[in-house]
Amino acid sequence: MIAVAIAMTTMSVALAGDPAAALTKAKTLCASCHGPEGISMNPLWPNLAGQQEQYLVKAMEDYREGNRKDPTMAPLAKMLSDKEIEDLAAYYAGL
Amino acid sequence: MIAVAIAMTTMSVALAGDPAAALTKAKTLCASCHGPEGISMNPLWPNLAGQQEQYLVKAMEDYREGNRKDPTMAPLAKMLSDKEIEDLAAYYAGL
Repeated sequence: MIAVAIAMTTMSVALAGDPAAALTKAKTLCASCHGPEGISMNPLWPNLAGQQEQYLVKAMEDYREGNRKDPTMAPLAKMLSDKEIEDLAAYYAGL
Repeated sequence: MIAVAIAMTTMSVALAGDPAAALTKAKTLCASCHGPEGISMNPLWPNLAGQQEQYLVKAMEDYREGNRKDPTMAPLAKMLSDKEIEDLAAYYAGL
C-alpha cells in the first residue's frame, strides 16, 4: 500500500509542470489577452487563473495540433514545446 | 455621451442570461462533471465557476455547431437552445 502511494505521488509530481519556468512566457505571450493574473481582458477570452492543470495542457495541445481552432491561439500554441505547455498549465492552475 | 452610455448599458443587460432559469439544467446536465459549484470533478474537465460569460456562450455554441469537438459536450450542447446557453453561461459566470 505504501509503495503504491509513493509511486502515485511520484507520478503526479512527474506530470506537473514547473510554474516558475513559465513566468517569462506567461508575461510575454499570454498576459496581453488573459491578463497579468489570469483574468482575461475581454469577456470572449477565458480566465485561466485557478483552472484545472490537465485541462489547460489539453487545451494548448488541441490548439497546437489543430483539434481546436482559434486564429490567435493556434500560432501561439505552435511555438510551445510539451514542457512549455506543462509549465504554463501549472503556472495558471496555481494562480 | 450619456445617450451612448445608456445604450451600451442596455445592450449589455440584453445580452446577459438569467442565472436562475439555468438552475435545473445546471444541476441535472452539468454538475455531474463540472461539479455542483462549477469546480470540476476531474482535472481534464474545466472549472466553470467565475468564467467569463461570453466565453462560456461561445464554448457551448462551438460544441453545439461542431466547431469544437468533444464526445461528451457535443450531444449535450445539441440539446440546448440559444436562451438555455445564455442562461447557463450567466449561471456559471456568477458562481
